[in-house]
Amino acid sequence: MFMEKYKIIIDTFGSDKGPEAILEGAKLILNEFDNVDLIIVGDKDLINKYDFDFSRVEIIDSKGTITNYDNPIEAFYKEPDASIFKAFEAASKIKNIGLISAGNSGALMVCAIKYLLNDKRIRPCMAAVLPNMNKSFTCLVDTGASIDCGPNQLINFAHLGSDFMRYLYKIDSPKVGLLSNGAEPTKGNKVVKEAYKLLVEDKNINFIGNIEGNKALSGLCDVLVCDGFAGNQVLKNSEGMAVNLITEIVKYAKKNKQEEVIMPLVQYLMQTYDFESLGAGIMLGSKVPVMKCRGSSGPKAIRNAAHILLNIAMNKSLYDGEDKR
Amino acid sequence: MFMEKYKIIIDTFGSDKGPEAILEGAKLILNEFDNVDLIIVGDKDLINKYDFDFSRVEIIDSKGTITNYDNPIEAFYKEPDASIFKAFEAASKIKNIGLISAGNSGALMVCAIKYLLNDKRIRPCMAAVLPNMNKSFTCLVDTGASIDCGPNQLINFAHLGSDFMRYLYKIDSPKVGLLSNGAEPTKGNKVVKEAYKLLVEDKNINFIGNIEGNKALSGLCDVLVCDGFAGNQVLKNSEGMAVNLITEIVKYAKKNKQEEVIMPLVQYLMQTYDFESLGAGIMLGSKVPVMKCRGSSGPKAIRNAAHILLNIAMNKSLYDGEDKR
Repeated sequence: MFMEKYKIIIDTFGSDKGPEAILEGAKLILNEFDNVDLIIVGDKDLINKYDFDFSRVEIIDSKGTITNYDNPIEAFYKEPDASIFKAFEAASKIKNIGLISAGNSGALMVCAIKYLLNDKRIRPCMAAVLPNMNKSFTCLVDTGASIDCGPNQLINFAHLGSDFMRYLYKIDSPKVGLLSNGAEPTKGNKVVKEAYKLLVEDKNINFIGNIEGNKALSGLCDVLVCDGFAGNQVLKNSEGMAVNLITEIVKYAKKNKQEEVIMPLVQYLMQTYDFESLGAGIMLGSKVPVMKCRGSSGPKAIRNAAHILLNIAMNKSLYDGEDKR
Repeated sequence: MFMEKYKIIIDTFGSDKGPEAILEGAKLILNEFDNVDLIIVGDKDLINKYDFDFSRVEIIDSKGTITNYDNPIEAFYKEPDASIFKAFEAASKIKNIGLISAGNSGALMVCAIKYLLNDKRIRPCMAAVLPNMNKSFTCLVDTGASIDCGPNQLINFAHLGSDFMRYLYKIDSPKVGLLSNGAEPTKGNKVVKEAYKLLVEDKNINFIGNIEGNKALSGLCDVLVCDGFAGNQVLKNSEGMAVNLITEIVKYAKKNKQEEVIMPLVQYLMQTYDFESLGAGIMLGSKVPVMKCRGSSGPKAIRNAAHILLNIAMNKSLYDGEDKR
């Protein structure tokens, strides 16, 4: 696929399963992608215990960790040698690179603003690409990095999401929907109503109107815009409902002794709604592509994040800071 | 079940399927519930065409309609004879009564504030009772009636939802969760963070902390508190995902020629996640119980709303305006 040597920085902290889960993911990446070298940031002694091919692995030693309970800005001054900060600092200095972290979203944003700002007017955001009922994908933006947003931030999300779907998914004029509590233009909270007006006026956005929660993943739009609070609900609620239904199906199969027919269906659904991978966020608007894996990430999620980074690398103009409109 | 004669006012406007769908629902109610008389508000000529037992049906004629595109307060002055307004006015004057409407949520709130205010300090809200993974129910409040909320409104929702679960579901000390973008107290938008502090301090609420979107219907809490914008996303997104998965299962069954085993599973899932009924909202904090059916409501949804009203009627102290704490 992508022939040029590519580097990926991996932050080993942030997974609920410990750095070991992320280091196992690093192993999967090295085994599968010949053209990738890794820079692994974390506890040097631990990393050295792994039987990596160290001709392809560089280690950056880190000290201290930050958790979801820490205030990201305070943490930045208290724990400047934490892996997340060291990883971003390194990313800002190296060309042809991507970054994977399962760290605190807020800290990721603080780092992106400090080290990876593309355009000083535009704050980066976090997107997720989710499978929709049209057998294609919807870019949900923001998924939780920017919680309290003004209308102009939502417009930025629309632009960043459109660029992403145009470059990565080759959609000429991505359809943009605005998440609201009703399809009518009069529906929405204050920020959404204001954003609606701005989106209608913006000639660089193919705005198709409000989208309700039940149509979020229907495939009506290619980009679904919302603040990070609402986006987080869509992302996690979709996952929760998929898990609930699949759990219900497994119970039903056991109760009715129909595992033979129904368990392959369960396997199929788990592949289609694979939230371990889908949950990963993609930072848009930063100089370097960053994949934010979830706290629950295991090795496979880390491997999948690398796969997406390689796809992005093939379309690296997305992150080159040029205006694409 | 409930022996005393009970009256239900039915607003015939608001369903996307026309007043006919609601009138068919009225027929189901009369057939099934002997102890219910109806007051049907709408086009007198149309209602008279139905072969109702008119000894049990009173008609209130109405003129004009309001739609989801209308501003509810303006509509109230422009179309004072619209069915929704006439229905609420009538409900305010009759004892032992409930009301069913599929009308505009905003107009329902305007009407409730004008005619059915229980306590002048507390604005009513709209709840939905959804099945959770604990094989019990979660009261989601608000589901879309109050879109831009302050922290104190969220506290009111917590009280109204707790009262509802205590009286209707006989839960002594209902567990209250706050919908947020993370489990930690530091997560949330400004309003949610502020509400978190107030909920911790409120001794009349059994607050268990923040709940993330994927745990919304896990059964961790009996009452899930959020503003109407976020609640609308949870409600509709849960429905959307259930529909998406069920659609996917049906396709899989056809493709693999396994309809015989899999279609009964589909039936079971559709009963468990019956959003035509589940989508109905219950107004809390009003003098009279009001069921808000969705725009997509058919006859069955109207019948189910009456069933819930009868359950509430058996616990009418919930709506008697006394302080239950």
